[in-house]
Amino acid sequence: MDRRSFFKKAGVVGAGAVATTALAAPAIAQANPKITWRIASSFPKSLDTIYGGGETLSKMVSEATEGNFTLQVFAAGELVPGLQALDAAQNGTVEACHTVAYYYTGKAKTWALGAAVPFALNPRGMNAWLYHGDRGGEGSQRGIDVLNEFYHKNGVHGLPCGNTGTQMGGWFRKEIKTVADLQGLKMRIAGVAGDIMGKLGVVPQQLAGGDVYPALERGTIDAAEWVGPYDDEKLGFVKVAPNYYYPGFWEGGPTVNMFFNQAKWDSLPEHYKSLLQTACQAADADMLQKYDYLNTRAIRTLVSQGAKLQPFSKEIMDAAFKASNEYYAEQSAQSEDFKKIWDAIIKFRAEYFLWTQIADSQFDTYMMQQQRAGTLKVDG
Amino acid sequence: MDRRSFFKKAGVVGAGAVATTALAAPAIAQANPKITWRIASSFPKSLDTIYGGGETLSKMVSEATEGNFTLQVFAAGELVPGLQALDAAQNGTVEACHTVAYYYTGKAKTWALGAAVPFALNPRGMNAWLYHGDRGGEGSQRGIDVLNEFYHKNGVHGLPCGNTGTQMGGWFRKEIKTVADLQGLKMRIAGVAGDIMGKLGVVPQQLAGGDVYPALERGTIDAAEWVGPYDDEKLGFVKVAPNYYYPGFWEGGPTVNMFFNQAKWDSLPEHYKSLLQTACQAADADMLQKYDYLNTRAIRTLVSQGAKLQPFSKEIMDAAFKASNEYYAEQSAQSEDFKKIWDAIIKFRAEYFLWTQIADSQFDTYMMQQQRAGTLKVDG
Repeated sequence: MDRRSFFKKAGVVGAGAVATTALAAPAIAQANPKITWRIASSFPKSLDTIYGGGETLSKMVSEATEGNFTLQVFAAGELVPGLQALDAAQNGTVEACHTVAYYYTGKAKTWALGAAVPFALNPRGMNAWLYHGDRGGEGSQRGIDVLNEFYHKNGVHGLPCGNTGTQMGGWFRKEIKTVADLQGLKMRIAGVAGDIMGKLGVVPQQLAGGDVYPALERGTIDAAEWVGPYDDEKLGFVKVAPNYYYPGFWEGGPTVNMFFNQAKWDSLPEHYKSLLQTACQAADADMLQKYDYLNTRAIRTLVSQGAKLQPFSKEIMDAAFKASNEYYAEQSAQSEDFKKIWDAIIKFRAEYFLWTQIADSQFDTYMMQQQRAGTLKVDG
Repeated sequence: MDRRSFFKKAGVVGAGAVATTALAAPAIAQANPKITWRIASSFPKSLDTIYGGGETLSKMVSEATEGNFTLQVFAAGELVPGLQALDAAQNGTVEACHTVAYYYTGKAKTWALGAAVPFALNPRGMNAWLYHGDRGGEGSQRGIDVLNEFYHKNGVHGLPCGNTGTQMGGWFRKEIKTVADLQGLKMRIAGVAGDIMGKLGVVPQQLAGGDVYPALERGTIDAAEWVGPYDDEKLGFVKVAPNYYYPGFWEGGPTVNMFFNQAKWDSLPEHYKSLLQTACQAADADMLQKYDYLNTRAIRTLVSQGAKLQPFSKEIMDAAFKASNEYYAEQSAQSEDFKKIWDAIIKFRAEYFLWTQIADSQFDTYMMQQQRAGTLKVDG
């Protein structure tokens, strides 16, 4: 808050020079300074969960500062195209963006690691690594800090701000049973996932959200992945490509990212930085909570609309896992940034998927068995 | 902040009447008022994850207000015994407490529903219900709001502030294979879980954390459940009762609770209420993230120390599930509060454990298979 707006708000009219002189800096420093930032979102408003993560953050920050720290969220295309949100934050067109880092693998494949890559972590694993680190001991670092070493070289400070849960594998016009069925298949799938599916014979296509449905309908593409049931229902894919596969093994626990222009981040008062960290962690949790709530309903609706729900075959999963490991070795050989971050992820991954087999998996499996047996049913 | 401290802090000395007159209320209302609250924790400092949730909250709130809103966390026994933290918040001895609601089933069984009861939700399911609600439609309510109808009748406002993940089933001196093996078994297990295990023949024992190890060692008790690997390692149970069972089906996704004295909560400025909500949601996520990180290491250590890791038999799980359903019917018949909250939970539960079978479970299963096959291994 500058001095002029302080006085204006304080209702000091005509008190003039004396009051101005009397007010020393400490009183101003104590208050929450007036700051307005613009956030470029990569998402359209219609996708209220993923776009809504930015709004949730904005509300938390505004309320905690009595409206003094304002984050104005602009939907994809309002200020800049959705897939250029990071560029806008890097060059200072906006102070920050709400996006998914894997949209920017055109700049460097390393970007994808802060969001999701095939066969990495699930949502809880990703967050355990991001917020607390790898296996501890000498040199152990939080994932957030490992990633920021890379982000800082690229002019932004990054914080997790959303997670969609494990995504679905997408909508296919025809059934896909074998790797042979993937040959020449034109699929809307981006970034590293697209590269790896390319190794299996898929021809990856980059299409913005709004263009996917018409392309599927016309048969310009054969398949498309988006997020999960709640968003997929809105986009109406079931009508034109009813084979609905799972899991989206390329997005086991995708993080949605906030990137702050580095100079703008550095210029923030410390208490605003801390508030943003807290609010991003809360908004991150909130997005997954909202998806988990909404997807439970949407999956039933989609099946009732004709979705043919089926898992990818073991042949396809195994081929994709093998191709992914080859890809990670190639990228790690080419890029030190990639290697450092990927090594940190897989160091935690091996331990994490041991622990998940015990209490969590056993409990969930028992409850899912009850669900199938119909013993969790509620009348009405 | 009152007017006097404002001037003192602003360094206004001797400027006198003019400045005082010139400063209207809005300038003061803008600042973050100085408030110091005491939080009674139910946990000892040595359990740095669960006790640490209170400290995490305190740090977030203090930093965001430049130290003006201070939450002083007191470990169990420092102000009041750990299991009387709620009473202290209710009667205003402290402004708030950080505890687990199921410690208070002596007051009413309904308290347990805001933390964990057997065969309810897992961590993600619990949070989806708490923060977003049941299946939507007419009368749909967030779990937090459903619970607060009950809490408000009891003089407190409640917010989730931590989750441990699905807990372990505990440490047993002897192997437990059948329901017959449970007859007369003296087990440290509390609340509703104790009642239900009682239906299977267990003799439940209430013991504070520090008393469990010596009781197990002497054989005064035959078994004890606590939380999970990280805390269990600290408490050393493996040395005296090495049979380590899973899952803790009575705590699929236990919420750790903050309860605020109702009058104190109501007296807070709106922006502090909002900040507490945001920080509690962030601290809630953070505790699970920390457990997920630390448990991955501890489980290996415990096995290397001789823990005999094994799942509860289907016979025991099925008998406990049946006993739980009987118990819920009994409690729902006796208490409208219990019935309303439990109905809201199970309405969501049936849908949730359908959705989890698809993308999340399929991805996790594949990754756990890879872990078992050794393909996630990292050299060194």
